[in-house]
Amino acid sequence: MQALPGFRDFLPDDCAARNYIFARWREVARRYGFVEWDGPVLEPTDLYRKKSGAEIVDQLFNFTDKGDREVSMRPELTPTLARVVAAHERAFKKPLKWFSIGQFFRYEKQQRGRLREHYQLNCDIIGESDFAADIELIALSIDILRALGLTEKDFVVRISDREFWTDFLQQQKLPTEKWEEVLQMIDKSGREPREKTKEKLGKLADPVFSIFDKGGHSGKLDPLVDGLGARGLAGFVDVDVRIVRGLAYYTGTVFEIFDRAGKLRAIAGGGRYDNLIGQLSDGGVSMPALGFAMGDVVLGELLRDRPAPREKLEAAVKEQNKIDIYVVIAKEQRRPDAFEQIQELRDRGYRVDYPLTADKVAKQFQTAENVGARITLLYGDEWPQVKVKNLATREESLIAGAALLDSVAKFFNVSGST
Amino acid sequence: MQALPGFRDFLPDDCAARNYIFARWREVARRYGFVEWDGPVLEPTDLYRKKSGAEIVDQLFNFTDKGDREVSMRPELTPTLARVVAAHERAFKKPLKWFSIGQFFRYEKQQRGRLREHYQLNCDIIGESDFAADIELIALSIDILRALGLTEKDFVVRISDREFWTDFLQQQKLPTEKWEEVLQMIDKSGREPREKTKEKLGKLADPVFSIFDKGGHSGKLDPLVDGLGARGLAGFVDVDVRIVRGLAYYTGTVFEIFDRAGKLRAIAGGGRYDNLIGQLSDGGVSMPALGFAMGDVVLGELLRDRPAPREKLEAAVKEQNKIDIYVVIAKEQRRPDAFEQIQELRDRGYRVDYPLTADKVAKQFQTAENVGARITLLYGDEWPQVKVKNLATREESLIAGAALLDSVAKFFNVSGST
Repeated sequence: MQALPGFRDFLPDDCAARNYIFARWREVARRYGFVEWDGPVLEPTDLYRKKSGAEIVDQLFNFTDKGDREVSMRPELTPTLARVVAAHERAFKKPLKWFSIGQFFRYEKQQRGRLREHYQLNCDIIGESDFAADIELIALSIDILRALGLTEKDFVVRISDREFWTDFLQQQKLPTEKWEEVLQMIDKSGREPREKTKEKLGKLADPVFSIFDKGGHSGKLDPLVDGLGARGLAGFVDVDVRIVRGLAYYTGTVFEIFDRAGKLRAIAGGGRYDNLIGQLSDGGVSMPALGFAMGDVVLGELLRDRPAPREKLEAAVKEQNKIDIYVVIAKEQRRPDAFEQIQELRDRGYRVDYPLTADKVAKQFQTAENVGARITLLYGDEWPQVKVKNLATREESLIAGAALLDSVAKFFNVSGST
Repeated sequence: MQALPGFRDFLPDDCAARNYIFARWREVARRYGFVEWDGPVLEPTDLYRKKSGAEIVDQLFNFTDKGDREVSMRPELTPTLARVVAAHERAFKKPLKWFSIGQFFRYEKQQRGRLREHYQLNCDIIGESDFAADIELIALSIDILRALGLTEKDFVVRISDREFWTDFLQQQKLPTEKWEEVLQMIDKSGREPREKTKEKLGKLADPVFSIFDKGGHSGKLDPLVDGLGARGLAGFVDVDVRIVRGLAYYTGTVFEIFDRAGKLRAIAGGGRYDNLIGQLSDGGVSMPALGFAMGDVVLGELLRDRPAPREKLEAAVKEQNKIDIYVVIAKEQRRPDAFEQIQELRDRGYRVDYPLTADKVAKQFQTAENVGARITLLYGDEWPQVKVKNLATREESLIAGAALLDSVAKFFNVSGST
């Protein structure tokens, strides 16, 4: 028996790496005043049809449940966000700054950086149309990656503007029903030969490529870049209107984060979707909104690829699964005495382990090293004294059992909290 | 549009309560030297059929995926654990002490304390047949509930012994193919009239009820109770062989945790399943094992029902979503100066929020109170000085912008870390 293709088992070190990424996501989102929420992993399939059209269903883990409901394992969070916000927005002060960490599913061909499940951080600001929200959101995405040890040498935020193109297409007097199609062509242009795009664009080719050749600048985004500059983050962003993002519902700023080396898929992507909540709530609640999503798979690849972030990740993994104190039972008669103190130490928050059954003393010390213990407590002939050993310095001392807790507290206070 | 029946949305306070429970689960499991792992949310349906028989499928969210695979959203973790352990056990020292926190799904009629999804903590010890492992595991389940503020007045661990009954049925010379059926009758006896159970048990009724009437004691479990006593936990447990647990695969100790008032469904349940890993791996890897699962729904009900645990929960929820510093922008010209310092404060780990757009000063102070800020920093006419206000004491002071970071650091060091 094996896991399904595209699904991961998380062995302890993998799980610790996952926890490390989640912890940084959570920590930085909270520094920005974002609060965490979550929705169900299973939703009515119509929620996704409504947002993305019927074709989306081909990419879903969808089925009919035993109550004859059409349901899908969630491929993304935004439709759920729109549903929840439309239902509860009166209970909260605007703007909402919400984040969520959860698992998402797509039935797709597996590729590097793309499985059938992944974890995603979603951060959204709802109820604010000012550029200030765009700046806050993009700054957050940058600071999350910085907290993971990545620098402006490692990644870049490419920012574009949907309105730049809708203004342009209006000028070109292209009928609105063709906009979507042309935006898709522009979106694809970076990934196919110039001639091919030109052919598809027809008479739009010349004006579009003249924009491209000017480096894709959009003056509309200047205040956004200035705002990030005021926070010292200008070096992390490039304005480039050649980025369009395929999704139909974006209305203003769109952005994607890539590794500078250009080796990987996008690390994160997002933008403004001012009409989506209104559309998904059938006009019940209309609110400007913007957000981004960052997945764990490509991010994990980048962290492991860059030396400093990898070191941080590996140190966090080691730290997470190590224990503080290993209790060595040198004489089985002392086991009940040891248990009493193990219980007290654990009650105080220390991570304590010991051999479940009788074992050679040398092997117990070996285990203590393996699990990364800082000290060992030996219960044996010395009782009612306990032999305390600092595994880093090899120093040993005999402490009266009754004084042990204070002595351990002193050790961990001096040499760093647990 | 609504969430599916039996599925929860987690608004920020709900999500914070969920995080609080997860944090205590994680913290206490680690104190016990358990390491975290996880498996996929979607698994081949055969994995569950193999463990629980074909009938289990009636209770699953199961379907055929686009690759024609029969798959199910996981109803429990143990089959995945068996699969993962059988595949990787050589990479780890025995015994394994593993825990996992994840979501599980069952297509069932909704009842109080029983939704169609819930989160579950699973803790398992693999590779140790000695009672010492049973003691360690049950002690862990107790200490988790203690860490949530529950006491021996709030809950009880009812411990029973599968072997007690298999020995008994052997003595009674009941053919083994009937054991399962009789164990189910005993399991149900607490929930139906005595006469009904008697009728079903037939000639076994007298010996079974004579055991019941003696209080359900089993001498075999004495060492287990003594072991918990050595840790000061005897007050939390009752030996009661009337508990059988319906599941066929338990081999030794079984236990369930209930609220003392008997108002709720079981908070947790588990036991020894020494043959299961061998069975699920077709005899490839045979290892003794035991574990328990604790769900978030009934536990959440109990925590909210008891005053001290509720207070702890509510304090943690409040703490999780509150911010440290609210920046008041009294003059819009000062916004860029404020941003520079907001960025530095966030870089140092403080949770900082501010109004995205211009707002009245009084309203900004109101927001600062609402989000639970400890201090406000006001940027206005006083610049290059910043007016710092302690919202608890209402004290105000003017600090030079350049000295602000040190001053804030001092404040948070003195009045408690962020």
